[in-house]
Amino acid sequence: MSLSATGHADSCLSIDLGAIVSNWRTIDSLSSAATITAAMVKANGYGLGANKVAEALAQAGCTEFFVANLGEAIALRQHLDGLGQNQPNIMTLHGCHLDQLDDHAAFRITPVLNDLEQLSRWRMFSQRQSDRLPALLHIDTGMTRLGFDTDQIDWLIENKSALDGVDCRYVMSHMVSAEIADDPINARQLDAFNEVRQWFAGIPASLANSAGSMLSAAYHFQMTRPGIALYGAHPADLPTDRLTRVVTWQARIVQLRHAKAGDRVGYGGTYLLGRDSRIATVGVGYADGYNRKLGGKATVLIGTQTAPVIGRVSMDSITVDVTDIDPAHLRHGSVELLHDGYDLSRMAGDADTIAYEILTRLGTRPARHYQNA
Amino acid sequence: MSLSATGHADSCLSIDLGAIVSNWRTIDSLSSAATITAAMVKANGYGLGANKVAEALAQAGCTEFFVANLGEAIALRQHLDGLGQNQPNIMTLHGCHLDQLDDHAAFRITPVLNDLEQLSRWRMFSQRQSDRLPALLHIDTGMTRLGFDTDQIDWLIENKSALDGVDCRYVMSHMVSAEIADDPINARQLDAFNEVRQWFAGIPASLANSAGSMLSAAYHFQMTRPGIALYGAHPADLPTDRLTRVVTWQARIVQLRHAKAGDRVGYGGTYLLGRDSRIATVGVGYADGYNRKLGGKATVLIGTQTAPVIGRVSMDSITVDVTDIDPAHLRHGSVELLHDGYDLSRMAGDADTIAYEILTRLGTRPARHYQNA
Repeated sequence: MSLSATGHADSCLSIDLGAIVSNWRTIDSLSSAATITAAMVKANGYGLGANKVAEALAQAGCTEFFVANLGEAIALRQHLDGLGQNQPNIMTLHGCHLDQLDDHAAFRITPVLNDLEQLSRWRMFSQRQSDRLPALLHIDTGMTRLGFDTDQIDWLIENKSALDGVDCRYVMSHMVSAEIADDPINARQLDAFNEVRQWFAGIPASLANSAGSMLSAAYHFQMTRPGIALYGAHPADLPTDRLTRVVTWQARIVQLRHAKAGDRVGYGGTYLLGRDSRIATVGVGYADGYNRKLGGKATVLIGTQTAPVIGRVSMDSITVDVTDIDPAHLRHGSVELLHDGYDLSRMAGDADTIAYEILTRLGTRPARHYQNA
Repeated sequence: MSLSATGHADSCLSIDLGAIVSNWRTIDSLSSAATITAAMVKANGYGLGANKVAEALAQAGCTEFFVANLGEAIALRQHLDGLGQNQPNIMTLHGCHLDQLDDHAAFRITPVLNDLEQLSRWRMFSQRQSDRLPALLHIDTGMTRLGFDTDQIDWLIENKSALDGVDCRYVMSHMVSAEIADDPINARQLDAFNEVRQWFAGIPASLANSAGSMLSAAYHFQMTRPGIALYGAHPADLPTDRLTRVVTWQARIVQLRHAKAGDRVGYGGTYLLGRDSRIATVGVGYADGYNRKLGGKATVLIGTQTAPVIGRVSMDSITVDVTDIDPAHLRHGSVELLHDGYDLSRMAGDADTIAYEILTRLGTRPARHYQNA
């Protein structure tokens, strides 16, 4: 891709929607035909564009989309309706809050009910409608974050009529450490989930996130809910060869300069040049989501060669030592920030975080180009 | 402010435009009446909204706005034109690249020229117009990032006619360590800048960023270019009492739950509860710009009490130990993430970064409310 595709921007994310569909099918293939595979598109589709991602997955047959809150849900519903795709289900993981009842119904959004308060609110509202409204029931089995806690679930088991008037589509829970396949908490959560769900016979169940989808069939139930794997980043400890890379990131060389041995580079003068050097200043910085910790650690690809990021990452630019780079490669005027030799996992490691944070904190300033729609 | 102001979002940034104007005036008051005070609004106004910030500052009398690239410049120009404010100058720090000539002219954007290539390009283009086009000349004095390097500036001094045909509004440079008032590099940069600019007599000069504006008058020249100070975050080592806080951040309590001694909280089960506890799950996560490193470090304000963030920060939520919080305070249903007792500087320290990165990486998902426009 030529950098002219970035237009007025200085960097460009290329997002392969075909790869996202391929990854969704890969996760889907891990479970039996009786298991539906949903898609996590919260946090703007893990930073890559919820509308585009959901559109591609809906066309591929995905019918269940999860977001965090009502704002995300409405934006996605409006986009899909505009395409004539008004069938997919959209679920809010944070549930339905005060003053959000009417809009959940108006935009056909299904709340995930996390406690008795949310359940009571949705149930009373549902009972005033002509049809029962759909909902998911979230049971906590060890995250201590969202979902019915032990006392509330005990109460609900004793008072099952509290569900009357709600169309409970799934009972779900969320895994704490599924990316560590042999963590004993996985089996403990599975046991706890099975123990609770027997009290809700006839209601389909869902437990597995991306990593959970890669555990045994016992974790799959009627629906899996992959997120990070769709976007090409593998949960830790698991083989990566079955997922396809989704995103590359290219940035403009804003300036090429000569500098002398003894010169210092960037804020604080932290990097001392040991030789006469050629420096490329590249138009991406931490405001674009290029983590500030990558200074002095990351490399970029220029043509077929890699070059180190030196000095501190600035708000809008980085400096790269291109002294050893073939001038012919520099003539293209751009570098690759994310590529086969330096993927999300490497970048996350150098930034001392996880691929999820790298993706979801990509800025709005990079141009986004979608391929294989 | 009531959380109902967040509407469909789960968190809300309140941005005090009056405080930004006040901070701009404070910086302006540090220099003589002969020194103009510009405003850095790149990176979407340090994450707070370039359009709103520039609009408020333009009304207060600011006439010079700096952004990084042409995309940011055009968006701002279109916004200001729409308001009838078509006078302010907008400068692109990254200069004018191939294929960007026409749009720089069409949208009345002034490029900062960083090397001979950019100068030649802009000059040839300017000479084809009926009027000379404006530009700024950026001289590197030690950043080794952007601006004419030593060899190129020597050449330009010998070949001043290379500037013919361009309306050179300012000669500028950028400081490496101005936030450390006694760093000897400040005086070295000042000397280097003065030495170069004597060769460009009659052209106004600009050197100081926020921290440089707080150094002696020798650093002020004809224009200062504050950024971070406008947004209420002080450069290090300098007193904060003269700047006004600009941003607060409030988030919804998505769920209140009871948990038992021995329960673990969040991904990886990293936090072990030592007592029966009450946990608030709050609707802000790293996808919103709440840095993942804040887990186990940050505190939030609930009413008049502070409470610790425990366990890992999730993509969309955090967990807070509210066992010791007065239930009356919890009834409001929200917490303050950034407040007087936990400001940008504290948050940046806990996240092992700088306030600039916290601000510019705020996500798009939080609602933004502007006050004192």
